[in-house]
Amino acid sequence: MSFTVIAAGLLIGLGALGTAIGFALLGGKFLEGSARQPELTGMLQTKMFIVAGLLDAIPIIGVAIALLLIFANPFIGQLGG
Amino acid sequence: MSFTVIAAGLLIGLGALGTAIGFALLGGKFLEGSARQPELTGMLQTKMFIVAGLLDAIPIIGVAIALLLIFANPFIGQLGG
Amino acid sequence: MSFTVIAAGLLIGLGALGTAIGFALLGGKFLEGSARQPELTGMLQTKMFIVAGLLDAIPIIGVAIALLLIFANPFIGQLGG
Amino acid sequence: MSFTVIAAGLLIGLGALGTAIGFALLGGKFLEGSARQPELTGMLQTKMFIVAGLLDAIPIIGVAIALLLIFANPFIGQLGG
Amino acid sequence: MSFTVIAAGLLIGLGALGTAIGFALLGGKFLEGSARQPELTGMLQTKMFIVAGLLDAIPIIGVAIALLLIFANPFIGQLGG
Amino acid sequence: MSFTVIAAGLLIGLGALGTAIGFALLGGKFLEGSARQPELTGMLQTKMFIVAGLLDAIPIIGVAIALLLIFANPFIGQLGG
Amino acid sequence: MSFTVIAAGLLIGLGALGTAIGFALLGGKFLEGSARQPELTGMLQTKMFIVAGLLDAIPIIGVAIALLLIFANPFIGQLGG
Amino acid sequence: MSFTVIAAGLLIGLGALGTAIGFALLGGKFLEGSARQPELTGMLQTKMFIVAGLLDAIPIIGVAIALLLIFANPFIGQLGG
Amino acid sequence: MSFTVIAAGLLIGLGALGTAIGFALLGGKFLEGSARQPELTGMLQTKMFIVAGLLDAIPIIGVAIALLLIFANPFIGQLGG
Amino acid sequence: MSFTVIAAGLLIGLGALGTAIGFALLGGKFLEGSARQPELTGMLQTKMFIVAGLLDAIPIIGVAIALLLIFANPFIGQLGG
Amino acid sequence: MSFTVIAAGLLIGLGALGTAIGFALLGGKFLEGSARQPELTGMLQTKMFIVAGLLDAIPIIGVAIALLLIFANPFIGQLGG
Amino acid sequence: MSFTVIAAGLLIGLGALGTAIGFALLGGKFLEGSARQPELTGMLQTKMFIVAGLLDAIPIIGVAIALLLIFANPFIGQLGG
Amino acid sequence: MSFTVIAAGLLIGLGALGTAIGFALLGGKFLEGSARQPELTGMLQTKMFIVAGLLDAIPIIGVAIALLLIFANPFIGQLGG
Amino acid sequence: MSFTVIAAGLLIGLGALGTAIGFALLGGKFLEGSARQPELTGMLQTKMFIVAGLLDAIPIIGVAIALLLIFANPFIGQLGG
Repeated sequence: MSFTVIAAGLLIGLGALGTAIGFALLGGKFLEGSARQPELTGMLQTKMFIVAGLLDAIPIIGVAIALLLIFANPFIGQLGG
Repeated sequence: MSFTVIAAGLLIGLGALGTAIGFALLGGKFLEGSARQPELTGMLQTKMFIVAGLLDAIPIIGVAIALLLIFANPFIGQLGG
Repeated sequence: MSFTVIAAGLLIGLGALGTAIGFALLGGKFLEGSARQPELTGMLQTKMFIVAGLLDAIPIIGVAIALLLIFANPFIGQLGG
Repeated sequence: MSFTVIAAGLLIGLGALGTAIGFALLGGKFLEGSARQPELTGMLQTKMFIVAGLLDAIPIIGVAIALLLIFANPFIGQLGG
Repeated sequence: MSFTVIAAGLLIGLGALGTAIGFALLGGKFLEGSARQPELTGMLQTKMFIVAGLLDAIPIIGVAIALLLIFANPFIGQLGG
Repeated sequence: MSFTVIAAGLLIGLGALGTAIGFALLGGKFLEGSARQPELTGMLQTKMFIVAGLLDAIPIIGVAIALLLIFANPFIGQLGG
Repeated sequence: MSFTVIAAGLLIGLGALGTAIGFALLGGKFLEGSARQPELTGMLQTKMFIVAGLLDAIPIIGVAIALLLIFANPFIGQLGG
Repeated sequence: MSFTVIAAGLLIGLGALGTAIGFALLGGKFLEGSARQPELTGMLQTKMFIVAGLLDAIPIIGVAIALLLIFANPFIGQLGG
Repeated sequence: MSFTVIAAGLLIGLGALGTAIGFALLGGKFLEGSARQPELTGMLQTKMFIVAGLLDAIPIIGVAIALLLIFANPFIGQLGG
Repeated sequence: MSFTVIAAGLLIGLGALGTAIGFALLGGKFLEGSARQPELTGMLQTKMFIVAGLLDAIPIIGVAIALLLIFANPFIGQLGG
Repeated sequence: MSFTVIAAGLLIGLGALGTAIGFALLGGKFLEGSARQPELTGMLQTKMFIVAGLLDAIPIIGVAIALLLIFANPFIGQLGG
Repeated sequence: MSFTVIAAGLLIGLGALGTAIGFALLGGKFLEGSARQPELTGMLQTKMFIVAGLLDAIPIIGVAIALLLIFANPFIGQLGG
Repeated sequence: MSFTVIAAGLLIGLGALGTAIGFALLGGKFLEGSARQPELTGMLQTKMFIVAGLLDAIPIIGVAIALLLIFANPFIGQLGG
Repeated sequence: MSFTVIAAGLLIGLGALGTAIGFALLGGKFLEGSARQPELTGMLQTKMFIVAGLLDAIPIIGVAIALLLIFANPFIGQLGG
């Protein structure tokens, strides 16, 4: 069962690294845009959330699968193993 | 069965890393463009979704195959595993 | 059969990483061009799809071969595996 | 049980590396924006916290899962392993 | 036979990574050129296809050899594999 | 027990590397901003501390978990291992 | 015979990666030059083909040797392999 | 006991690498700021020490833990190991 | 004899990677120079061929030695292999 | 005892690499500042020494611990190992 | 004798990679200089050949030693091996 | 005793790499500053020597320890090992 | 005796890589300087040879030692090995 | 005795790589400075030699130690090993 733990660590660890750097780049552009044109802040924030949804989609799936592997491992019911 | 878990982690992990950084770069250009020309925001958002569909295509396939490997592994019915 | 799973993960994982970053670079240029000259958006989008077809060609083949290896492995009928 | 410790180290270590560099990039943009337009500081700080919530989401989940693996390992009750 | 699968994954995976990033760079230049001088779009597209043919040549050969290794492995008839 | 020491070294080592470079980048922006607008120094410092709290959060958790693994290893009471 | 397959994958894979990125850089310069001075397009294309011949020479030799190793392996007749 | 020495080398080595490069970046900004506005030197130095405290925090903890592992290893009294 | 195949792959593979990127850089400069001063194209092309001869010298030797190792391995007549 | 030598080499080697590059960056800024404003040289040098003290702190500790491990290894008196 | 082949591949492969990229950088400067001042082309070419002699010296020695190792291995007459 | 030789190679090798690149960066700034303001050359040289002392400190210690390990290995008198 | 061959390959290979790239950078600066001020060419060439002597010193020593190891290995007369 | 050869290769190889690139950077600055202000050439050359002495110090020591290890290995008289 030890490979499952490593796989979960890999799934969430790579996702965490990616989203942390990704949101930093995206949020930096958002803050820059807001500081330059404060009257557009609301619109830019809405747009950023749309991009954030796309950006977060695959990592969140990775987290869900890691949780599933830890709490309800489907291989146990299949082959005992 | 332990290689399957590692392969799933690799499939989703690389995809998550790629899409997180990819959408950050793409969304940053989108926010920049919207902040500079707010009247083009709607058009740019439509275009971004088209690119997002292309960008997400292969990683989503990777996620689907990872799920398939975990829940309905086709090798079990073939050779016992 | 475990090498087949790893090979499939490698095929789709590298393709996903490449297309995600590739479309981000390409789409960023497209959004930039559209924001600067909105009247050329339609023409640019057509051109981008042509490039997207070229860009996606090899990764899609990789996905197809990974699927083939998983569902209809030709080595099973040849040498028993 | 030794793989669990390595996995926890990997989960939190990658998350710590990512968030440290990510917040440095994001906070640098925030300080830059505040220094250039001090009257927008409050608004920018609110926006930064929204981005920070998104940025921290996946690493915090990684931390939670690492804690769970250390203190209440679900595999112990399942297979003794 | 397991090395053949890994070799096929390596052949197509590296090619997919290379063409994805290569066409992104090439297509970005093409979109940039078209956006700046729309009257030259047709000529530039023809030129880009010539370059695309050169760019794709070796990766396509790699794909062909990977397919050959999978479906009609010449080593089987020679030495029994 | 030797894996625990390596894991602790990895947890604190990666965190130390990340925070050292992160605070260098963040503090460089802070000093730059203060040097350009000395009258905003107090406000910028308050803001920097808020960012520092976010930046330090995950590495501090990593340190805490490393200490816990060294001084009160929860696996000893569970499985003797 | 398994080393031969890996060597072929390495020969064509590295060549494909190199030519894909190389032609992208070269073709980008070509498109840029053509877009800036359309009247020189014919001359530039001739020159690019000369460079392309030089650029492709070694990778094509690599492909040829990989094919030779796969279809007519000279070591079989020498030492039985 | 040999893993403990490697872990201590890793803890202090990574911290030393990080702080050396980090203080070089931070101090470079400080010298630049002082050279441009000598009348702000005192204030900038105070600020730099605050940042230095934050920057040094985690590496110093790493050093302390490495010393503890070398001089008063808590695992000796626990399991003899 | 398997090391010989790997060595040949390494010899030609590294040479192909190097010449592909090298001619791309060199040819890009050549196209740039020709586009800016078309009347110097002939002279520049002559010069580029001289540089190309120097650039290609060592990789071509590498190819020749790889061919020699494959077709007329001198170690066979010496020590049997 | 051979791990101790490797650990000492790692401790001092990484520290030497870090301080060499760090002081080069820091000293470059110092010489640049002195060349631009020679009347501030004394003040800048004092400041540089303060930064140098911070920069050198952790590597010097690493050197001290390496010396301690070589000349007065505390593990010899503990476990004979 | 297999290490000799690998060593020859390493000697010529690294040299080929280095000279290919080195002459590309050097030749690019030469073409740039000739395009800007065509009347200096002869002098620049003479100078480039002098630099080329220095640049090629060590790789050519590497090639010579690789050839010597392959065709007249001095270790055979010494120790038989 | 073979680990001692490797450790000495690592100690001096990393130090040589670091100081070579470090002094190149530092000396480049020094030559640049002297060329721009020849009347400050003496003062800049004095300053550079101070920085050089700091830069060389840790690598010189590494060299000393490597010499000590080679000529008067303290472990020989301790454990015979 | 096989380690000696690998060591010789490493000695000359790294030196060839370094000098090839080093002379390319140095020669590029030399050609640039000559093209901008042709009347200084003689003086610059003399200076470049002085730098070339310094640059080539250590790699030439490496080549000499590699030749010595191959043709007159001092270990043979010492320990037979 | 085979580790000694590898260590010597590592000592001189890293030093050759470092000094080759270091002198290229340093000499490039020197040629640039001489080309811009020919009347300062003598002074700059003196300064460059001082920097060259510092730059070469540690690699030369590495070469000396490698020679010592090869010709008069101190471990032979100590432990026979």
